[in-house]
Amino acid sequence: MKQLLKNARILSMGQDNQILDDAYLLIDGSMIAQIGSGQPPEGIDEVVDMKDRLLLPGLINTHSHAAMTLLRGFADDLPLQTWLEEKMWPIEGRFGPEQVKWGTALAVVEMIRSGVTCYADMYDHMDEVAQVTVEAGLRARLCRGVIGLGSSEEQENKRREAVQFARNWNGAGEGRITTMLAPHAPYTCPPDYIERIVSDAEDLNLPIHIHMSETRAEVETNVKEYGVRPVEHLERLGVFNRPTLVAHAVHVTEEEIQMLAEYGVKISHNPGSNLKLGSGIAPIPAMLKAGIRPSLGTDGAASNNNLDMLEEIRLAALIHKGVQEDPEAVPAETALRMGTSFGAEALFLDHAIGTLEPGKQADLISVDLTGAHMQPPHDLLSHIVYSAGRDDVRDVYVDGIPLMQNGELCTLDEEKIRYEALQAFEEVKS
Amino acid sequence: MKQLLKNARILSMGQDNQILDDAYLLIDGSMIAQIGSGQPPEGIDEVVDMKDRLLLPGLINTHSHAAMTLLRGFADDLPLQTWLEEKMWPIEGRFGPEQVKWGTALAVVEMIRSGVTCYADMYDHMDEVAQVTVEAGLRARLCRGVIGLGSSEEQENKRREAVQFARNWNGAGEGRITTMLAPHAPYTCPPDYIERIVSDAEDLNLPIHIHMSETRAEVETNVKEYGVRPVEHLERLGVFNRPTLVAHAVHVTEEEIQMLAEYGVKISHNPGSNLKLGSGIAPIPAMLKAGIRPSLGTDGAASNNNLDMLEEIRLAALIHKGVQEDPEAVPAETALRMGTSFGAEALFLDHAIGTLEPGKQADLISVDLTGAHMQPPHDLLSHIVYSAGRDDVRDVYVDGIPLMQNGELCTLDEEKIRYEALQAFEEVKS
Repeated sequence: MKQLLKNARILSMGQDNQILDDAYLLIDGSMIAQIGSGQPPEGIDEVVDMKDRLLLPGLINTHSHAAMTLLRGFADDLPLQTWLEEKMWPIEGRFGPEQVKWGTALAVVEMIRSGVTCYADMYDHMDEVAQVTVEAGLRARLCRGVIGLGSSEEQENKRREAVQFARNWNGAGEGRITTMLAPHAPYTCPPDYIERIVSDAEDLNLPIHIHMSETRAEVETNVKEYGVRPVEHLERLGVFNRPTLVAHAVHVTEEEIQMLAEYGVKISHNPGSNLKLGSGIAPIPAMLKAGIRPSLGTDGAASNNNLDMLEEIRLAALIHKGVQEDPEAVPAETALRMGTSFGAEALFLDHAIGTLEPGKQADLISVDLTGAHMQPPHDLLSHIVYSAGRDDVRDVYVDGIPLMQNGELCTLDEEKIRYEALQAFEEVKS
Repeated sequence: MKQLLKNARILSMGQDNQILDDAYLLIDGSMIAQIGSGQPPEGIDEVVDMKDRLLLPGLINTHSHAAMTLLRGFADDLPLQTWLEEKMWPIEGRFGPEQVKWGTALAVVEMIRSGVTCYADMYDHMDEVAQVTVEAGLRARLCRGVIGLGSSEEQENKRREAVQFARNWNGAGEGRITTMLAPHAPYTCPPDYIERIVSDAEDLNLPIHIHMSETRAEVETNVKEYGVRPVEHLERLGVFNRPTLVAHAVHVTEEEIQMLAEYGVKISHNPGSNLKLGSGIAPIPAMLKAGIRPSLGTDGAASNNNLDMLEEIRLAALIHKGVQEDPEAVPAETALRMGTSFGAEALFLDHAIGTLEPGKQADLISVDLTGAHMQPPHDLLSHIVYSAGRDDVRDVYVDGIPLMQNGELCTLDEEKIRYEALQAFEEVKS
């Protein structure tokens, strides 16, 4: 089927950064076939008028634990270790497939509504996550996060489960689902366990996703236990020989940034979560100088407390300017790339998504330009980064299929999901 | 007239912080007459069902230059002095009453839509600002900002204009308009000029509003020119003998914070603007420890780039946690108070607004609780601070008069304002 989105303005986030006015975008099947200005092609099955809307690549959330929406606001304003060990892990221990299913569904509603077309997720009961994602029509890079703190039997069970999930679901949903392997973190996985997972990743030819250097305390513990900081630790374990995406990288030195850049390690910067947990502020300007192209993630809703990628883009554009006292620290365009094209690279999907270009998958969103906060229309890229909100996102397409049109969800029953999510939470809350 | 808002949940931001369920709020004329749970009173003229909505005090924006909405995105990512001197001041020099009128109207639309019921404004052509504000039904504390860089004749003309404005409009709009006197900043006003304005403020019995210690460079210049940092400088000039609201206070030492606290000086923290201009991050946790109750402001839209107070509240709750690596640095409740009750104090209007309590003016907003990002409803205060967006604001009342109902503006023609604002911008843009 051919669909034409016409009368639009288009910000492709390709090589140049010009906005096309009076423009159209032609979708053929699941892919972008043509982008142009002026007279659109004829003989089209479906034509959608995008007057007063800006089309741009769908936002890409490179680190989340979607089902944690059930724990939004459950425990705030505590240090990471207390928050994890005393609050999150006990209640998460009571999570079963139902909690993960409905928590993820709630997250998927929230993500689609805020313009996310692709997300990375690391959690448990991942079959549920994958199933919900396929049904919603979203794109995702999924992994079973494994914590290696238990007995060796428990370790092996989890590893097998992670491998099985990664094998079963890679390529599912007409290719929209891809997978990774995910040792949770250097502080939750013994070194030999991480090495075994690296070897699994090699066998399956899949990337690795891991939390790293999120807090100062974590780095200190790593040095005490293993004699080196986390970057060198993971390098020695061979992690960086695989394509790797690390989440957080808040406490990394200049030398560590150099090492990450040399290995082409991808970064998921999670400013909202890092700020809220008091973890610190990742040295993004130094990473950019070293040639790293960091992406953005929301982390779980329990530490954010939303899954709004426009907010992460704005935080990335703002906080480094303030901390460095440098208004050029992370320019608006860079922040928007972090949420789009750099996100695609971080998930090793940049051949398929991240920019609006013929030959790429039709993963895109429209943003309404008529709000008072979007006037005057001098510089639409600036407005997207510094002023737009999730309420401005009107249409969301993945693989050319509309998941939201004019603010109405097309693939999900939002009311039912809200109801079921509250039920699922009630079952585990005490 | 009596109006009853029923079936609501109510967060009064009064002494305690409990949320009232199954609650009602009775408005008698312009004031809150009664708040309670259970069976509401009868014999009411107008009843509004607030099912699934949380009522809370209207948000208070304690520092803005509303008409600068016309310059949103006009020049981004530049240092303050360059941005002011090379970009803002030249185009602002071409602003006439029309630009201020329509720029302010655009700002007022944006503020009402995002839950602001009261704002402070410092600008030029203030008769237009006041007129627009009265027509919109908003509450405001307004002042003509005077820059004393010109000839002594220019200085005197501006001062007279500021005094005249302050005298003419104080108490207008059934008391919703109050005024201040505003020497722009220590670096734009000679000391004797500031002293004369302090004397005017004494004569008129009005507060003073001034920018102070926004950038490191400003502080250094102050020391070079006057031998002291801005706080001591203003103290010597007698400014703090008047009720005073300072905007920014980014670069203040422990000793300066002590002095500000001792004089009861009010602070308008502008995190969005301070971050975006690379000015730095105000030491809000230290101020809180010293007993100061900082308020929040958006600053002008040219340096923010929106007027969304929920975003400022969230930034205040997040950035200090990250910078201090302390998840308790600014708790959610404190951040919300900064945007409500502390804001009322900062504008010397806490006898009338800032909390929902019988005897106060009925300045309040409703927030929709049904969005996916607001689930599950564990902790509504946390959700308002960390997850809600301007799109969740559904109703806005000032003095008991609805300015927005169910997302529809009641007092303003948004389309006309958007059109006129663009025309007004076109007239000055080159």
